[in-house]
Amino acid sequence: MTMMAGLTPQHFDWRMEGRVAVINLRRPERKNPLTFESYAELRDTFRDMVYAEDVDVVVFTPNGGNFCSGGDVHDIIGPLVKMDMKELLAFTRMTGDLVKAILGCGKPVISAVDGVCVGAGAIIAMASDLRLATPAAKTAFLFNRVGLAGCDMGACAMLPRIIGQGRAAELLYTGRVMSAEEGASWGFYNALHEEGELIAAALKLAGRIASGPTFANMMTKTQLNHEWSMTPEQAIEAEAQAQALCMQTQDFERAYHAFVAGEKPVFEGN
Amino acid sequence: MTMMAGLTPQHFDWRMEGRVAVINLRRPERKNPLTFESYAELRDTFRDMVYAEDVDVVVFTPNGGNFCSGGDVHDIIGPLVKMDMKELLAFTRMTGDLVKAILGCGKPVISAVDGVCVGAGAIIAMASDLRLATPAAKTAFLFNRVGLAGCDMGACAMLPRIIGQGRAAELLYTGRVMSAEEGASWGFYNALHEEGELIAAALKLAGRIASGPTFANMMTKTQLNHEWSMTPEQAIEAEAQAQALCMQTQDFERAYHAFVAGEKPVFEGN
Amino acid sequence: MTMMAGLTPQHFDWRMEGRVAVINLRRPERKNPLTFESYAELRDTFRDMVYAEDVDVVVFTPNGGNFCSGGDVHDIIGPLVKMDMKELLAFTRMTGDLVKAILGCGKPVISAVDGVCVGAGAIIAMASDLRLATPAAKTAFLFNRVGLAGCDMGACAMLPRIIGQGRAAELLYTGRVMSAEEGASWGFYNALHEEGELIAAALKLAGRIASGPTFANMMTKTQLNHEWSMTPEQAIEAEAQAQALCMQTQDFERAYHAFVAGEKPVFEGN
Repeated sequence: MTMMAGLTPQHFDWRMEGRVAVINLRRPERKNPLTFESYAELRDTFRDMVYAEDVDVVVFTPNGGNFCSGGDVHDIIGPLVKMDMKELLAFTRMTGDLVKAILGCGKPVISAVDGVCVGAGAIIAMASDLRLATPAAKTAFLFNRVGLAGCDMGACAMLPRIIGQGRAAELLYTGRVMSAEEGASWGFYNALHEEGELIAAALKLAGRIASGPTFANMMTKTQLNHEWSMTPEQAIEAEAQAQALCMQTQDFERAYHAFVAGEKPVFEGN
Repeated sequence: MTMMAGLTPQHFDWRMEGRVAVINLRRPERKNPLTFESYAELRDTFRDMVYAEDVDVVVFTPNGGNFCSGGDVHDIIGPLVKMDMKELLAFTRMTGDLVKAILGCGKPVISAVDGVCVGAGAIIAMASDLRLATPAAKTAFLFNRVGLAGCDMGACAMLPRIIGQGRAAELLYTGRVMSAEEGASWGFYNALHEEGELIAAALKLAGRIASGPTFANMMTKTQLNHEWSMTPEQAIEAEAQAQALCMQTQDFERAYHAFVAGEKPVFEGN
Repeated sequence: MTMMAGLTPQHFDWRMEGRVAVINLRRPERKNPLTFESYAELRDTFRDMVYAEDVDVVVFTPNGGNFCSGGDVHDIIGPLVKMDMKELLAFTRMTGDLVKAILGCGKPVISAVDGVCVGAGAIIAMASDLRLATPAAKTAFLFNRVGLAGCDMGACAMLPRIIGQGRAAELLYTGRVMSAEEGASWGFYNALHEEGELIAAALKLAGRIASGPTFANMMTKTQLNHEWSMTPEQAIEAEAQAQALCMQTQDFERAYHAFVAGEKPVFEGN
């Protein structure tokens, strides 16, 4: 039985609020860039989370008024321009593995975005299940502006599914900032909150989800990501199987008995 | 040649308005819940509809100010908590088969939603081709609130395609109500109408579609559901074949001759 | 090395503005219909564009206040109603091949839409990467109104990815006009501009994209269209490979050195 409450990561901050893990990146003076080390440690942490018994929801928060400035120019881009293809593919696969690990971790992930949220930072937000932001959030898939393609860490597959193909194409071809208002209007952000209220709102949403049936939430997350390329028939059969599993959990029984008794169900995640 | 005008279902109401079949669920005092029997009879009815020569469009309407309260707690959830896996999978497959039958029936389906539209009721609306609602419509994919996963009857595959992945995730992880205004803004509802005008608006839209080329509409429906998991190349080839079929219908010829004569075409569905 | 600057098409207008190819259809007195000949010549032109060294972006513009009235009733629909299946499939495949050629040409395509944009004209806009319009743009996937199905040239696959399945279904089942305002609100149009400013706005956007890393833009376009039917895992691996390729371009190095020097990068597309 894996417990993650006592985790002391070397390259990002981690704390537990009840059964909600709260993560922020470091170095606010540089707007919290990613480095080779923090990419790898985040990837490993989300891989471990599959087995964590004490984490039900994960929240990424800003640090010093910004979310994340993406891969650091000096620490990451400098070395990349000197690498050979074997090394480059190892790097792009490692960053992609972080997204796969977030998608596969079995816990709903919420990004609470303020200020700068660009490059790989925008990808972390995109790969989350839910996204909140302040009106000051500036989100940019800016790969194009550093000479790269918009197809980074799954963006060409995932962003169109969130905001539509036309809007995704504009952001990826120009690298321009998506304002918070656009993000909310287009469905990238689920809601906007004032800066002083963002983290509380994210924790409240996380708490609401954590108080739900967490085994069932894990199945919801699995299916939301696994059914993209299924036919409707395959998806419906997959859901028939997944939901039948959930109907054998005690949480389903708890909900039924609570309803009959006129009470609010207390879920235990099994 | 199958005719369905005289249908007298045991577990829901059915009437014809011209070539439009109008369905509503029963027991308004309990907000029109689904039961094992009405699920099965709806599934069989939509399966038969493939062959119906006298039905061009189907409209689901509210009953007593509500659309549908989903699977009844006493009639459905009670028995489910006592079932073994074989029985549970038979149930989830039966409910999924209703969605498959709606998708496969060959006739555009319109849901006209008022009041409560939750659980399997929200799924029926989702599985319809078009959706209208009143400002009072309260739509919730509330599976999570009864201890289950959001992956019910195809929701994790279909809802993201209608309203986007981020909004779908929020509704499925929290089970919260989507207001009518949200539904219209997000593309779940095609339009809102006042309560007194909802059914007339739905029948007008249905009549407009029924007066179109119904063989071609059947092909549109088929392709809208079959191309989800195709590559663009596969989809374009599939449409080249499907449209070539339609170009051999008399309706295509009727439209051409009407246009040349400066008249409105009268389609006959062949 | 293919150069297209001197192209003199027989059935549409072509000019270069720097490295941006500008296309408009002909016969404004009939709102610029497509004909068998212009379909075929457009298809061949977009196929050739894959190898063009002097074209970075393509812009479709209106002509005489309208974008395109689709397949001409007299020149196209008339002959079609007399064709046998072999001839019909050859036609629908040719029109589909135009869409495939636009998707596969390797250059971002922008449609600048004013006035009438219907039938195959709406499809050209849909198959573009980005779309601008005037408030007077009237866009209709009107196949249904001429007795045909909405599944024309990829519409049932592509339109739902741009505006969502529910809105796409309404447009395809009714053939109704989507207003410019709806188009902008739903994500079909990236922005609206007054008539006198539309072409300048499209050329400005095209110029911005053309001044970016064009090899990387080609990879973005490739992935935006190739990942539709991939699983998230497949898409992330595909992007790891595609981005690693881009990291070996000189444009990536140029951007890094410009950033370190505090300058704006000058990309050269290699």
